[in-house]
Amino acid sequence: MRKIEQISQNAYHSAGFIGKYQQLVRDVVIPYQYSVLSDKAPDAEKSHVIANFINAGKALRGEDCGDGYYGMVFQDSDAAKWIEAAAYSLSCQPDAELEKTVDSLVELIAHAQDSDGYLDTAFTIKDSERRWANLLEGHELYCAGHMMEAACAYYLATGKRRLLEVMQKNAEHIYRRFVTEKTEGYPGHPEVELALMKMYHVTHDPHCLELAEHFINCRGQDPDYYIKEKERRDWTVWGNNPVDHDYQQCGAPVREQSDAVGHAVRAVYLYTGMAELAAETDDQELFDACRRLWNSIVQRRMYITGGIGSTAIGEAFTADYDLPGDTAYAETCASIGLMFFARGMLANEVNGEYADVMERAFYNTVLAGMQLDGKRFFYVNPLEVVPGISGVTPTRWHDLTQRPKWYACACCPPNTARLISSIGQYAYGESGDTVFCHLYAAGEVRFANGMSLNCRTEYPYGYEISYDVSGNGRLAVRIPEWSGKFSLSVNGSAVTAVPEKGYIYLSVSDGDSVKIVLDGTPRFMYASPRVPALSGMTALCRGPLVYCFEGVDNSGDVLSLSVDPDSLPRPCGFDSGLLGGSEKIAVSAFRTSDDMPLYSDSAPTQTPCEAYAVPYYTWANRGENQMRVWMSRIR
Amino acid sequence: MRKIEQISQNAYHSAGFIGKYQQLVRDVVIPYQYSVLSDKAPDAEKSHVIANFINAGKALRGEDCGDGYYGMVFQDSDAAKWIEAAAYSLSCQPDAELEKTVDSLVELIAHAQDSDGYLDTAFTIKDSERRWANLLEGHELYCAGHMMEAACAYYLATGKRRLLEVMQKNAEHIYRRFVTEKTEGYPGHPEVELALMKMYHVTHDPHCLELAEHFINCRGQDPDYYIKEKERRDWTVWGNNPVDHDYQQCGAPVREQSDAVGHAVRAVYLYTGMAELAAETDDQELFDACRRLWNSIVQRRMYITGGIGSTAIGEAFTADYDLPGDTAYAETCASIGLMFFARGMLANEVNGEYADVMERAFYNTVLAGMQLDGKRFFYVNPLEVVPGISGVTPTRWHDLTQRPKWYACACCPPNTARLISSIGQYAYGESGDTVFCHLYAAGEVRFANGMSLNCRTEYPYGYEISYDVSGNGRLAVRIPEWSGKFSLSVNGSAVTAVPEKGYIYLSVSDGDSVKIVLDGTPRFMYASPRVPALSGMTALCRGPLVYCFEGVDNSGDVLSLSVDPDSLPRPCGFDSGLLGGSEKIAVSAFRTSDDMPLYSDSAPTQTPCEAYAVPYYTWANRGENQMRVWMSRIR
Repeated sequence: MRKIEQISQNAYHSAGFIGKYQQLVRDVVIPYQYSVLSDKAPDAEKSHVIANFINAGKALRGEDCGDGYYGMVFQDSDAAKWIEAAAYSLSCQPDAELEKTVDSLVELIAHAQDSDGYLDTAFTIKDSERRWANLLEGHELYCAGHMMEAACAYYLATGKRRLLEVMQKNAEHIYRRFVTEKTEGYPGHPEVELALMKMYHVTHDPHCLELAEHFINCRGQDPDYYIKEKERRDWTVWGNNPVDHDYQQCGAPVREQSDAVGHAVRAVYLYTGMAELAAETDDQELFDACRRLWNSIVQRRMYITGGIGSTAIGEAFTADYDLPGDTAYAETCASIGLMFFARGMLANEVNGEYADVMERAFYNTVLAGMQLDGKRFFYVNPLEVVPGISGVTPTRWHDLTQRPKWYACACCPPNTARLISSIGQYAYGESGDTVFCHLYAAGEVRFANGMSLNCRTEYPYGYEISYDVSGNGRLAVRIPEWSGKFSLSVNGSAVTAVPEKGYIYLSVSDGDSVKIVLDGTPRFMYASPRVPALSGMTALCRGPLVYCFEGVDNSGDVLSLSVDPDSLPRPCGFDSGLLGGSEKIAVSAFRTSDDMPLYSDSAPTQTPCEAYAVPYYTWANRGENQMRVWMSRIR
Repeated sequence: MRKIEQISQNAYHSAGFIGKYQQLVRDVVIPYQYSVLSDKAPDAEKSHVIANFINAGKALRGEDCGDGYYGMVFQDSDAAKWIEAAAYSLSCQPDAELEKTVDSLVELIAHAQDSDGYLDTAFTIKDSERRWANLLEGHELYCAGHMMEAACAYYLATGKRRLLEVMQKNAEHIYRRFVTEKTEGYPGHPEVELALMKMYHVTHDPHCLELAEHFINCRGQDPDYYIKEKERRDWTVWGNNPVDHDYQQCGAPVREQSDAVGHAVRAVYLYTGMAELAAETDDQELFDACRRLWNSIVQRRMYITGGIGSTAIGEAFTADYDLPGDTAYAETCASIGLMFFARGMLANEVNGEYADVMERAFYNTVLAGMQLDGKRFFYVNPLEVVPGISGVTPTRWHDLTQRPKWYACACCPPNTARLISSIGQYAYGESGDTVFCHLYAAGEVRFANGMSLNCRTEYPYGYEISYDVSGNGRLAVRIPEWSGKFSLSVNGSAVTAVPEKGYIYLSVSDGDSVKIVLDGTPRFMYASPRVPALSGMTALCRGPLVYCFEGVDNSGDVLSLSVDPDSLPRPCGFDSGLLGGSEKIAVSAFRTSDDMPLYSDSAPTQTPCEAYAVPYYTWANRGENQMRVWMSRIR
């Protein structure tokens, strides 16, 4: 049984910091992304997604399919993620024009579905004979999963069943093939598992649950499935190596896995499906595996920013404690997936640790993935960039100093849009008469149990969070691991509460006002000495925000700065004109003179100075410059 | 006119540290490598080099060529480098058996030469039609260059002209093609340029000088030569990208180049040829280019160990100050090539800086390339290894924790052997009545001007160097940049001398005894703050030796150590039983407790301790363990 249920899709109406981001997604990101999908955005890489659906429809009707297929094999998923983002946005705020746009796209999608339920424009247009022959690379199940998520979201937003029915038919097609007909195979890129769990929650179709369970259970039973599959065909998409079990997370049945390995997005999408299934079916063994994989990530393989995947080669996990900031991959989508996984874990176990990680990933890597104006996006989120080296040398070619506009492989931008639009479902949850506040998200939230909350906070730039309660019940609020102390008051009177596994619980009544004040003292952070890349370094954090040092605030040069972690960091005051509303922090530092040769036996001159840090999520919004999260420390 | 001439090949008879290494090469490396070349070494990768020469001879005679060709396209050069090493060894110490072995191999080589002078077994056996069609990748000129070097060395060692005549005929074949017939093109992998300069010095054939000059001058005149070449053929060796001008050092004519770029070995081989030519022809413009390229390397692109080439991708230079120790490539051959370049520069300008770099490369990266027993070799010389990460993760797959036996691409082992066998030619030089001591190499050396020296020293484990002089003239001894102070005495009386561009000059007479005492105080080193990877780090050096910290001396863990550079390092005394005779240095350090989570806002506990360092060249001789050159420092 699920320990915490998600709130319904339209239950949260944002304000404050979150509200501003949701508004940005609504006003800028969703329209911009639609213009990309329909190839009307100037200067963006060609998408052709919508044209692909039109052409697939023509192909199915036996018509000439025009300019055919264009794009990555998983191009369809860009449309799916965009619909999902639009759906979440519509849940919060009706928009007839947007809904009409989605409806037309849904019609195109419906017409691109084959009579047997198959839906994938890449194979329908180009390679109808090759359907299902390349689970390793073909992404048919991945695209199906994303479209199922879109279908659920759009149905919940509008009550319209058209896309949901398309995807029910598609799910049944897949069920027939893999369950009824017992065709071998499991998804090359996990995603459909978690999507089927969503479908099950919306439709209650037991086939969806059974199919998710099937894919999760059969994964790794035959670790060599992809090898055999490859032997049966004479073509590949990219020539992926079917022998690399780690990359595919299929070296062992999932219940036996312990290390987070391989392609980081695939990994966390898989683990999310596993966690959701474990919660749904009370599968302790599966949950134990999830917990091991969770620990592998958060205890040994996660950047301080919530980024995961240390290497660009395969966009993958590498080894315990291998967390170089300069060559990091830390894909935006992987941190989004980590939030999915955290939410799935919360469905199994009430534990503040999951929301701590969710918050770390959201306020740092996920938000850093998008430029403050919503128009440019990072795939890769390094913890250090040095112009002249980053984006230039072979080892750091992927670590760009500026966000590009749109990628040929455009998974991150729409993924960010859908995550931000649906953040309420991560921030709040409920279980019986208890309502959970996992994240501090300003705005109003209504719960299925009849309670509602109005949350007022300047978070993450203020550490006071007030809840005005409507209805009676229990209020559970997470106290983050980073808040050394906190104070609590109900209707103005101080109250003592001891967190249980990261949450305080209060019985509340209609009209109560609950106020929590967290400890917003900036913190110098240290990494385990087992992390080779971080010896002698320190990072600055405040609340959920990881800070970074950029050249623009530091005379153009942060490499020559070392900070004094025994000094008290000095917040400079919230500045609404800074980086969309932000706050610098000044720290005591020393600047090393660079008037020295490459190597010298004279200790370089170090001059005391102030160094200024800004939140990591705001970096690279003021032109190309040096940036560092981890700074050398003077002691 | 050459400012400093090399001593003749048989003029130096080594003792001490160098003597021990030359003995090791003679006793172990040369015989072992011959067993590899003849495919008789157990557990080594197949070489087939000798078989290739036999089979090429058969092919030329129209016979069935047996098991054909095997190996890299430049496999011939392994034999050439081995002959060269054997020749240097024979110059110092006659060995009838070894000479007989070389003679037989020379016969096989002679029979593998086509009647027109062409010599390259790869193309002769497999692809006779493809001769000279792929200068980008084909390595015909590279192999020719190495065989010319071998021919010169073997002639100078033994007076035998057989191989020299083969290579004179080969040089004439190349001259005809590229000069007489004006065929376009320049070497994909530079090497023949420096080899032709050697041929010129031995044979005085003006065509050799002219051909070297031709290849150097035409390089980069048409930067797109390789693109055009590729368009004319339908095959490649590895699919090298002809568009990458940097990789090929052909983006501009060499006289216009300023940054050391591309494949590091190719670069320094090219620059060596340029420097040798500039010295020979008094070409100031060419020397100015060499000086810019030299500065680019030693001021901005060189590891403290004298390693060059920061990335495994392309084995190449990257960007200024990009010197990560963990992902370093720093190929052994590249540091050997840097020594060639330094020697070439010394032919142009008497300046201690060149010998400083020569010494840095030799005592650190070059010697580190070989296991102390002479049986295993590193290609790649990282400045940090962490078992579990190094050699495992995609970014660090190339940084091995232990030396492998023999490589399929076996350039480094025989290159190391020939360098060590000929080190006297780097250590000593002469010009008129002045004899130069660039490196401190114990043993006897005779100069063409009639003087001779007997050098007595425990260097690099002692800093007192005595020269017993025979004959009259001037003695020029380099005072290394690292020796803050030094003392000098002649026949027991203190003498004052001020170094001029790194050398002190003394008039000496027959029977004089000159003693120099350098400053062997261990030094903590600092890197320019422009090097992102080295912020807050320090390295320990003593004399020419860079030290490193290995787990075996430090309770298995060096990552958790930070050192106190304000303390005095404490040499532990020379230990003849340690690492073939070596000396540890103890430093004051702090050990960080690893009893902490991945990230924490509590400063970790640091406990004072002693940390022990050993010379970098000795690392990885005591099993797999952590190793670090640059350590975080506590202030």
